Amino acid sequence: MATTCLKNVLFNRRLTASSIKSSRPSYLLRPCPAAQTRWSSATTEPRQPDADGGTKGGPSTQRYIKYTSESYPGIKRDNKFGKLSKAHVKFFKDLLGAQSAVIDGVSQDATDDLEPFNSDWMRKYKGHTKLVVKPGSTDEVSKVLKYCNNNMLAVVPQGGNSGLVGGSVPVYDEIVINMSRMNSIRGFDEVSGTLVVDAGCILEIVDHFLAERNHIFPLDLGAKGSCHIGGNVATNAGGLRLLRYGSLHGNVLGIEAVLPDGTVMDDLSKLRKNNTGYDIKQLFIGGEGTIGIITGVSILCPQRSKAANVAFFGLESFDKVQEAFRAAKSQLSEILSAFELMDGQSQDLVHAVTAKKRPLEGQYPFYCLIETSGSNPDHDSEKLEKFLEHVMGEEIVSDGVLAQDETQIQSLWSWREGIPECLGHWGGVYKYDLSIPLPELYKLVEDTRERLTSVGLIGDDEKHPVVGVVGYGHMGDSNLHLNVATRRFDTEVEKKLEPFVYEWIAKRNGSISAEHGLGLAKKAFVGYSRSETMIRLMKQIKDLYDPVSRITPLLDCLMTNYTAERYHEPI
Amino acid sequence: MATTCLKNVLFNRRLTASSIKSSRPSYLLRPCPAAQTRWSSATTEPRQPDADGGTKGGPSTQRYIKYTSESYPGIKRDNKFGKLSKAHVKFFKDLLGAQSAVIDGVSQDATDDLEPFNSDWMRKYKGHTKLVVKPGSTDEVSKVLKYCNNNMLAVVPQGGNSGLVGGSVPVYDEIVINMSRMNSIRGFDEVSGTLVVDAGCILEIVDHFLAERNHIFPLDLGAKGSCHIGGNVATNAGGLRLLRYGSLHGNVLGIEAVLPDGTVMDDLSKLRKNNTGYDIKQLFIGGEGTIGIITGVSILCPQRSKAANVAFFGLESFDKVQEAFRAAKSQLSEILSAFELMDGQSQDLVHAVTAKKRPLEGQYPFYCLIETSGSNPDHDSEKLEKFLEHVMGEEIVSDGVLAQDETQIQSLWSWREGIPECLGHWGGVYKYDLSIPLPELYKLVEDTRERLTSVGLIGDDEKHPVVGVVGYGHMGDSNLHLNVATRRFDTEVEKKLEPFVYEWIAKRNGSISAEHGLGLAKKAFVGYSRSETMIRLMKQIKDLYDPVSRITPLLDCLMTNYTAERYHEPI
Repeated sequence: MATTCLKNVLFNRRLTASSIKSSRPSYLLRPCPAAQTRWSSATTEPRQPDADGGTKGGPSTQRYIKYTSESYPGIKRDNKFGKLSKAHVKFFKDLLGAQSAVIDGVSQDATDDLEPFNSDWMRKYKGHTKLVVKPGSTDEVSKVLKYCNNNMLAVVPQGGNSGLVGGSVPVYDEIVINMSRMNSIRGFDEVSGTLVVDAGCILEIVDHFLAERNHIFPLDLGAKGSCHIGGNVATNAGGLRLLRYGSLHGNVLGIEAVLPDGTVMDDLSKLRKNNTGYDIKQLFIGGEGTIGIITGVSILCPQRSKAANVAFFGLESFDKVQEAFRAAKSQLSEILSAFELMDGQSQDLVHAVTAKKRPLEGQYPFYCLIETSGSNPDHDSEKLEKFLEHVMGEEIVSDGVLAQDETQIQSLWSWREGIPECLGHWGGVYKYDLSIPLPELYKLVEDTRERLTSVGLIGDDEKHPVVGVVGYGHMGDSNLHLNVATRRFDTEVEKKLEPFVYEWIAKRNGSISAEHGLGLAKKAFVGYSRSETMIRLMKQIKDLYDPVSRITPLLDCLMTNYTAERYHEPI
Repeated sequence: MATTCLKNVLFNRRLTASSIKSSRPSYLLRPCPAAQTRWSSATTEPRQPDADGGTKGGPSTQRYIKYTSESYPGIKRDNKFGKLSKAHVKFFKDLLGAQSAVIDGVSQDATDDLEPFNSDWMRKYKGHTKLVVKPGSTDEVSKVLKYCNNNMLAVVPQGGNSGLVGGSVPVYDEIVINMSRMNSIRGFDEVSGTLVVDAGCILEIVDHFLAERNHIFPLDLGAKGSCHIGGNVATNAGGLRLLRYGSLHGNVLGIEAVLPDGTVMDDLSKLRKNNTGYDIKQLFIGGEGTIGIITGVSILCPQRSKAANVAFFGLESFDKVQEAFRAAKSQLSEILSAFELMDGQSQDLVHAVTAKKRPLEGQYPFYCLIETSGSNPDHDSEKLEKFLEHVMGEEIVSDGVLAQDETQIQSLWSWREGIPECLGHWGGVYKYDLSIPLPELYKLVEDTRERLTSVGLIGDDEKHPVVGVVGYGHMGDSNLHLNVATRRFDTEVEKKLEPFVYEWIAKRNGSISAEHGLGLAKKAFVGYSRSETMIRLMKQIKDLYDPVSRITPLLDCLMTNYTAERYHEPI
């Protein structure tokens, strides 16, 4: 085996550098192609919050955004809620003091100022709010909610407004309670790794704060530059570090939240163990702000790793992918930090759009990207080598490359992270974010492709609406992104996709929303992933905390009989 | 540096062997003292479920067990619940079929047969049940609960009955629903590590099943030979693997439970990600069976590690202990699997009782036990060496030894795990299982010791009731076990301890029950760890799921004004 030195490999491709030296088997010496800037790093546009995209299509460049109330005519404003008056606005101005804490469209025209709070970054949802309030403390949030409760004013909590399912913008004239002024880091204990922050802290700022203290936030995602910790917790965000560090249900130690009636729920424990009754805070993790507004979070943060490696493989079948995953879990074990899946068609489409040189010379039906991170670069490299010898020696993997510096790490990641952007090249994309038991993870892609092929919808020319059906995602989390790239949105395609995809998921007890939440976009389909009993139990919880559904009643509509067709009306 | 070979080090000290070789700095070469059988491994008596013990004292050898109804006269049977009749018994016999599925003390005398189900292993709690039913399926649990609901019969769910807080035995004539017949492993996916089991599966059996498949259950505790997975989840058990693998709130993927009215809540997801509404199942994790009976659990199981190392240190101060912990987290990072704290007095008492040769020659105010487990023995050894060089070179640690084989690993662990048994040598022990923010973790021991010393209660002779005040526990989880070893239970001592300890905990937002739950023993004190608001929210949840409190209403008494004195009446 030949030997080479790998220098200047960054341990975290975004933050910290550390040089490593190690020997590599010769078959790994071929460098991967010239560096490519990661697809989203250069843009100054609002970044797509998650590289896996939303429900349909990516960010639009159009100026006009259709009102959600027009797109979803089935949702009616409940007139039990009051209309905003100048007296209401005066109350909020007096309460919050600072000029910038209230954006008032009631006593004056403030349409432009309200626009960023009324619509989402994808420009898919737009509300009619006339009032944005920005409380600066938990006490102010409490007073705002109490006043709204007493005056039957509907509200919608808003964090970084980077969601993908329309959950953080109003539909009608709900008051937007924007949390951006609650942005203090309350404390950090370096021994235990316990961090306490205001809900409005931006993820990236918190992660930088932790980096200076040799720790990381146990969550990372594309929208880190704008999303709030409170929003992350409220939506139980998944992201890139879940495989290694687990979900927020395990990492969040405490939550401070304000209930719809203004009650402050102070459950901001900093303790790793606390078995004194029901763990109520868990309802707020993934509760999407529908039973209260999170104002503070305490969370366990791991030590930051000193080393990172990225490898990219070609494989002949999904069985081989599963074998590789099993081997990675076994041999990379405690240092495995990502195992991403990309199918051949997804890489073909990326190649067709970018014309970049492929990482591997041959073409394969499946590709994987594996990342390791650990505390000792030499050990990690040695583990990775052994793993590579095994998977290549046993012909589990057909070919592979290993990034030898940060540029190559970024280049390899671009073949995974660039997929969503490239898929939109031809027109619209039908996107599904799904959890499926691992053995059947890829079968949905095959079944969908076969279904669309059998009726002649897929082809290389303009006559065929569908360019391709691709699958990729977080293999390590059993999280598949099924994407159907099209030249145009087409009702024939839609009819073949839905409810087919949802029924397919339901049969396998999968999830129709693995990591993005329900919001407005998916609430109508929750019945495909949750039984009537579970939906009834959820409804009970909503009724318990918010009996008048004053906080935007997203989950209140769980039982509403939206049709798939309505969901897919162009919006 | 001298070099030695370490052979026959078991990667898991209970299950599997693997030889490793490594070099050691010379100061580590001194072997630790001759092997000692671990304190609990030879007994055939019911094992103490947790080496950290319960509330007061250890297992008693007396035959007579006082009825809980006599020990806690403040708890009254609610006469809205029906009395068992022969007709009821006939229903259950007809329903469950098997002769062994019903133990009937209604139509016949079955006192001896009922005894193991009426009382706990500590012989501290005893109920008056006349009926034990053992459903064999979720459907049977549902039918049992539905029948009880319709006939207003109170019930208490029972798993392995290994709890420490009296939560799994009846107080009056509640029907015991024992889950031991639901003991099938429903499935295991080796690729994802997802295991699905009946609630009545015994932890050790499941862990053996997983060991054969190169995985481990993400929880381990002393009672593994008898405790049920369902009980583990219902009590959110902590145990030995929490530092490494996190809590059940993060690892449990799905729960199947039967609600008090017989409704089957099928939330037995096998998905790692599922953001489709409130995560209701979390309420059942740590809910102690008070809102429903868990019948099935799906859980994520990690790969089993190939290597384990154990080191034992002496340190000069708690500040040094914190420094060592910080260094261990940083340098051992992904392989650190235990960081246990023992103070000097705890080790003095173990030494006084066992007369074993101490692991270290000198005596120190603090000791730590560190365990690593990872996938590569050589890498782990090298990391551990570097760490040892650092903490000894920097004089963070004053002296230390490293176990060189499985016998030595067990011997070192015995100095930690043997503490509870040794403390009981002189008579009674006042035991507190507490979570405290790490920086102040040990201050409670100092404050308590000072408090008892200042009033002359501690001394070496019979005139003084208190032998010593010691602290030990799971440093890595901020979980302190404060133990006061006494020659006799003494009201003067009790008055000095309570409510002092609970108030001390309350001031620091600690937890009065880190890992054992509330049960009957601690429910009266929950107000020291939870605010009135949180208790009210818990009460709401209980009312929501069990409005008639038919399932033994442990949490129903949250607001009851039990006094500390009553709690400490001898029982």
